[in-house]
Amino acid sequence: MEETNVIETKDGTIAVASAFPGQQEAVRDRDHKFLTRAVEEAYKGVECGHGGPFGAVVVRDDEVVVSCHNMVLNNTDPSAHAEVTAIREACKKLNRIDLSDCEIYASCEPCPMCFGAIQLSRIKRLVYGANAEAAIAIGIDLIDFIADALRGTGFYEKAHLEIIKADGTGAVIAEQVFEKTKEKFFRLLTPSKKKQTDKEIKCWLKKNKHFDLDFQKRLFCYG
Amino acid sequence: MEETNVIETKDGTIAVASAFPGQQEAVRDRDHKFLTRAVEEAYKGVECGHGGPFGAVVVRDDEVVVSCHNMVLNNTDPSAHAEVTAIREACKKLNRIDLSDCEIYASCEPCPMCFGAIQLSRIKRLVYGANAEAAIAIGIDLIDFIADALRGTGFYEKAHLEIIKADGTGAVIAEQVFEKTKEKFFRLLTPSKKKQTDKEIKCWLKKNKHFDLDFQKRLFCYG
Repeated sequence: MEETNVIETKDGTIAVASAFPGQQEAVRDRDHKFLTRAVEEAYKGVECGHGGPFGAVVVRDDEVVVSCHNMVLNNTDPSAHAEVTAIREACKKLNRIDLSDCEIYASCEPCPMCFGAIQLSRIKRLVYGANAEAAIAIGIDLIDFIADALRGTGFYEKAHLEIIKADGTGAVIAEQVFEKTKEKFFRLLTPSKKKQTDKEIKCWLKKNKHFDLDFQKRLFCYG
Repeated sequence: MEETNVIETKDGTIAVASAFPGQQEAVRDRDHKFLTRAVEEAYKGVECGHGGPFGAVVVRDDEVVVSCHNMVLNNTDPSAHAEVTAIREACKKLNRIDLSDCEIYASCEPCPMCFGAIQLSRIKRLVYGANAEAAIAIGIDLIDFIADALRGTGFYEKAHLEIIKADGTGAVIAEQVFEKTKEKFFRLLTPSKKKQTDKEIKCWLKKNKHFDLDFQKRLFCYG
């Protein structure tokens, strides 16, 4: 079993571990392809009104097994984050609880629940796009616990899977999801007869930095 | 929002926080009743062949909302731990993703995935019976990461819910689950035409301290 391999490059590309430059590029292109699919899912989820702007794709042997998004609002299920949904669907499709021959691509850094599910399913490799901070930046401030809980605690370090944080284009397209879906997502959470403009939402967010309790609760469908 | 309140008493009773002895006793009795129900679910789950020996009960206003057990094997879903299943079912029943007026009783210490789901559902109070070590003792040694990940990391301390570890009778009945279901549970995981006796299983466990990989994978349905 491999030890954890968290790789973060600063060279503007998705980080991969390989001794061969040609192979590195192939892996990078491959990762980019599947990460893009996860990002597309994130957009799709908000578009459909199913939940937060998060997508996840399970891949086996270069083939997409399942491609899912956050279904929290649609399923009335706080555990239906994109990653958990993808794992559930992949297990159903492959008819087994062991996904050790699979990888997962997530549009955003997984929360502790999702990271736990990834470990339990024995997925061998995780590639994610945006940092949790990108979600926090649009106002999902209740997810602070997620970053705090995972970082510097040994939780990642103890995991027996390879973890890749996308950089460069991969990170950019993943982070853009939040800004680009913000209006639709917030409208989803605050159903109103009056169509709010992006400017109005920005203004509202500025004024309501801590939100009201009810709104916080509804925002708490991160993943 | 209350700060975390982890209470562990050594007086042979379930730990509760109250300034009034009479009230303490009432809360203790109440906790014992619901924890017993969670423990019963743990037995039921193995009896039905649905998954590992773990149960969870969601309670609101002194009423059981749902009573569930590990469904990993039955649903072919590694995320179908008792707690996650209970949260999903409770949300479905109450038709909302916010369980902030509910408590959860778990037969065993929740894993990080389940603890994340508890936080996401905003459950206000968690009472659990056995420590993860009780499960480890019967051979579910892959759950080491669970205890390590949660303890001493600030993950519990940051949680905005009250956490009660049962002691005394509550802990004993919860810990007994593992010893008492071991034979059935192991048979569930190693389907064999030959009925294995408890002695044979003990002998097998002694010889196969680290198990084979395939067996480990199947054992990895803790929660």
